[in-house]
Amino acid sequence: MNTTDDISALIELMAKLPGLGPVSARRVVLHLIRNRSQKLQVLSDLMQRVAATARACINCGNICTSEICDICSDERRDTGSLCVVEDIADLWAMERSQVFKGRYYVLGGTLSALDSIGPETLRIPYLVERVKSEKFDEVILALNATIDGQTTAHYIADQLDGLCQLTSLAIGVPIGGELDYLDDGTISTAMYARRALQ
Amino acid sequence: MNTTDDISALIELMAKLPGLGPVSARRVVLHLIRNRSQKLQVLSDLMQRVAATARACINCGNICTSEICDICSDERRDTGSLCVVEDIADLWAMERSQVFKGRYYVLGGTLSALDSIGPETLRIPYLVERVKSEKFDEVILALNATIDGQTTAHYIADQLDGLCQLTSLAIGVPIGGELDYLDDGTISTAMYARRALQ
Repeated sequence: MNTTDDISALIELMAKLPGLGPVSARRVVLHLIRNRSQKLQVLSDLMQRVAATARACINCGNICTSEICDICSDERRDTGSLCVVEDIADLWAMERSQVFKGRYYVLGGTLSALDSIGPETLRIPYLVERVKSEKFDEVILALNATIDGQTTAHYIADQLDGLCQLTSLAIGVPIGGELDYLDDGTISTAMYARRALQ
Repeated sequence: MNTTDDISALIELMAKLPGLGPVSARRVVLHLIRNRSQKLQVLSDLMQRVAATARACINCGNICTSEICDICSDERRDTGSLCVVEDIADLWAMERSQVFKGRYYVLGGTLSALDSIGPETLRIPYLVERVKSEKFDEVILALNATIDGQTTAHYIADQLDGLCQLTSLAIGVPIGGELDYLDDGTISTAMYARRALQ
């Protein structure tokens, strides 16, 4: 391609971002260059600032710009319940649903013998310490309903046994879900966990 | 979302880029923050540089970092033929195909009475001047095979009539195309323009 080196390099870098490829990266870069004063400049300034300030909260693992994140330092949030999630994206998803008003703990992955990710990598010993010292009433294991997620949840449940009440998210038919398109596992779990209508 | 303001603003900006939405923007930003020293910093530095240096070539309209772009200033390219394209993305597509070794002219759009885009907006008078002064042997109208593209091509052909040889891209079955999935217009045009096999 006969563009100058910086532009080609920018397209190449953008093409490696998740969900983008060479074609969409070209389109994005062209769009940015066309609006370079309003968009490209603003976007790069913002990226500079985020690159300089973004860090992990030492308490929960969320991304923030200070040592302790907004959620951990928010006095109005319930200090009696802790929600354990796999990933920061899961924490953001929980926050969007606005259903949980307690504290979080981000594991940063799931246990995996193949990838040699053990309890220490996920800071599970630190989680146990935190549950002991902060005396939560309830710890919610909001891990993904995948094999890896559930294996990790079982391990954590073992470690936290007797320290507090442990719960996990309900498994069932998602809202808007059609039985015809759901897998057998979800349907049978939803059947076993059926509830009375009144 | 309980992230700090800069991170939310970055997600919001990214979500407005072509081909991205809120979900993919969140994924991209999270990926960038996770690799902030290797990716976010490099990407923002590159964007800063491109924002500062990118400009339109005064000759052809291509994007470059100098007054005259690499293609216009490349002495090895054929100065006898000019390829007129709608958009910079089309110029890049032509360059990727490596089939054309002459000079380009980017219109920057198509004629449109509704959007009040006239010949002056597309710098067609300047194109006519250029064809007159540079004495091209051939001008290839490589405009999109859409109604707007072809209308614009007809207008340009009228303006350049008698100044040089005028050609346009062949219309036919694309490579890998299946007749069953092609529109009637393409099939009938390909039929009329059929060629002898030897």
